[in-house]
Amino acid sequence: MDPKVAEHAVIALAQELISRMSVTPEDAGCQQVLSERLRALGFTCESMVFADTTNLWARRGDHGPVFCFAGHTDVVPAGSEHAWRFPPFTPTLHEGMLYGRGAADMKGSLAAMIVATERFVERFPQHRGSIAFLITSDEEGPFINGTPKVVETLEARNEKITWCVVGEPSSTTHVGDVVKNGRRGSLSGELRVFGIQGHVAYPHLAKNPVHQAAPALAVLADTLWDHGNDFFPPTSFQISNVQAGTGAGNVIPGEFHVSFNFRYSTETSADDLKQRVCAILDAHELDYAIDWKLNGEPFLTAEGELVQATVAAVRHHCGSAPHLSTAGGTSDGRFIAPTGAEVIELGPVNATIHKVDECVSMNDLIQLADIYESLMEQLLC
Amino acid sequence: MDPKVAEHAVIALAQELISRMSVTPEDAGCQQVLSERLRALGFTCESMVFADTTNLWARRGDHGPVFCFAGHTDVVPAGSEHAWRFPPFTPTLHEGMLYGRGAADMKGSLAAMIVATERFVERFPQHRGSIAFLITSDEEGPFINGTPKVVETLEARNEKITWCVVGEPSSTTHVGDVVKNGRRGSLSGELRVFGIQGHVAYPHLAKNPVHQAAPALAVLADTLWDHGNDFFPPTSFQISNVQAGTGAGNVIPGEFHVSFNFRYSTETSADDLKQRVCAILDAHELDYAIDWKLNGEPFLTAEGELVQATVAAVRHHCGSAPHLSTAGGTSDGRFIAPTGAEVIELGPVNATIHKVDECVSMNDLIQLADIYESLMEQLLC
Repeated sequence: MDPKVAEHAVIALAQELISRMSVTPEDAGCQQVLSERLRALGFTCESMVFADTTNLWARRGDHGPVFCFAGHTDVVPAGSEHAWRFPPFTPTLHEGMLYGRGAADMKGSLAAMIVATERFVERFPQHRGSIAFLITSDEEGPFINGTPKVVETLEARNEKITWCVVGEPSSTTHVGDVVKNGRRGSLSGELRVFGIQGHVAYPHLAKNPVHQAAPALAVLADTLWDHGNDFFPPTSFQISNVQAGTGAGNVIPGEFHVSFNFRYSTETSADDLKQRVCAILDAHELDYAIDWKLNGEPFLTAEGELVQATVAAVRHHCGSAPHLSTAGGTSDGRFIAPTGAEVIELGPVNATIHKVDECVSMNDLIQLADIYESLMEQLLC
Repeated sequence: MDPKVAEHAVIALAQELISRMSVTPEDAGCQQVLSERLRALGFTCESMVFADTTNLWARRGDHGPVFCFAGHTDVVPAGSEHAWRFPPFTPTLHEGMLYGRGAADMKGSLAAMIVATERFVERFPQHRGSIAFLITSDEEGPFINGTPKVVETLEARNEKITWCVVGEPSSTTHVGDVVKNGRRGSLSGELRVFGIQGHVAYPHLAKNPVHQAAPALAVLADTLWDHGNDFFPPTSFQISNVQAGTGAGNVIPGEFHVSFNFRYSTETSADDLKQRVCAILDAHELDYAIDWKLNGEPFLTAEGELVQATVAAVRHHCGSAPHLSTAGGTSDGRFIAPTGAEVIELGPVNATIHKVDECVSMNDLIQLADIYESLMEQLLC
């Protein structure tokens, strides 16, 4: 192993963070580590604790524009440690990769942000505007007491973010090949279709909600909700869970539960989707109730200084421009974009996230710090 | 309370049987009680134990025709005793009713059979043919080691039943108003539809088996399988249980489980139904597997001496002819009918069976013994 890589400041900090078992909503002292490094650079660090969640808002500078790194110190559970090649909370370097829970999602990105900032501040101590960090310990969890509450606090005091780089692992095969410049909206529904329970031998005395609902589900699954647009794929509808029945083979179920989720483009809206679902269910004369949950409105940073700087930085350090995408899951970017900030997500390869043997290329993390530094140089100098 | 009713031999024996806690597959000594009474009448009693199930085959006479009473000593569980008005295994007489688990299903019928036989044998000790009892302790359970095994044993030695009266509670509002002269077939299927699991945010990488199957289920639920006939209602298809999903809202399920059941008429067959289900699933290009279970072929005793005798006996003792029906659940009659026997089911009112506060009219049980005695008189004299 190249000692220059293994002993790189980014790798060292990533290892220190991975060794802390910060399963959501635990921070396990990670933000303390980040704060110490940032205070040494002249940042003002505010710890914002809401219920079980620890958040950090750190800022260097009093004026706009505000360049903000956003991320999270929490990780998903490791599951059975025996399934792992190396202990998940003992960071391990092996054949160019850094192994451990959170290596890719997203302690590696946090380390790259800090080291990039240290180098940038050393070179440009009088940079214009401000540098900020918005870090939570609740991104993998219920996302209630994390980024939303910090954003609410900042909004209340009219503290605005101009450009936001979220360190989520956006890349597919090597760092920078994909940058997310938006995300689809996410709308969930818990549908209950009501029938009348009874004995299968006496179907005329019962009403089978699965029979009633099947044609409606077929229509929902077959509906083209929109065609998407230049930035978004078409809106998709997926049933995630269904359940009906008592377990007994001779009982007609009285209720049918269906959980579904929309990932939707900016060509539609949550209200429009709700209306169209109900219209389909009504057309099939179902007796039903739906509990809706809007997980996030879609957001899009179609163009602007941040996207331009990102494309330039990736092209410079990686050799080719990134693919701009709005695909994939949700991220905390959805809470920051509505404040008016330009938001992109740029981080390492996501192939192993939430899996056993999560790992990240050490060279990718080092390159990620270079890209992050380049962004600050383009936007704050 | 009329002491003539409360002290009637049928009620006394029913109470003795109810006081024995013979939850399937336990017999709790009930068959011993029956055997002692039958041996005193000259019956040869064979106890046939298969695995956990106790069966009794008792016969009086060496020649045909064979008139057989069939029934079971086991009962379904009582559930929480606190929910009962009277303790379920302490038979209680109250306002003309006999309360207790098994009062209606079917210890009351067993008592009526024994007392009817005692009176008949006393009157006609030289009756023609034979009287038999086929009693199991497994009717409410898996029906593997009960009636099917006894029938198998009898068939192996070519011992035939001519007429069989099953004591299942066939009646609706008073004893004899409904007699079952057949039962629909019952065919169950456990369908698994295979898709490809994935993240709801990446539907193009997954294949949702609920989406795939919904149109096929709609067709199955809407299919007219046959029109029934003079004796059977149309074949009915019912989905009893469905399940898909991991519980997580962001995962497209990899498999979809659907349990369904046919109650089918003599206008179709199990093989025909299987083929038609598979043709519908194939037409929807599903990747699937089905585990079939044939719970019972349909049977029908459309006419003959037993039906004639039953109609006459009910008309004589109850004032009007019974309604002949093939509706309702399955019974052990389905195992006996295929041997060539004429089979009817005649027992008390089924309103409280399998429920708390199971009870039966004492007068109905006494009348039932009269009807049973009349059947033997018509057929064996």
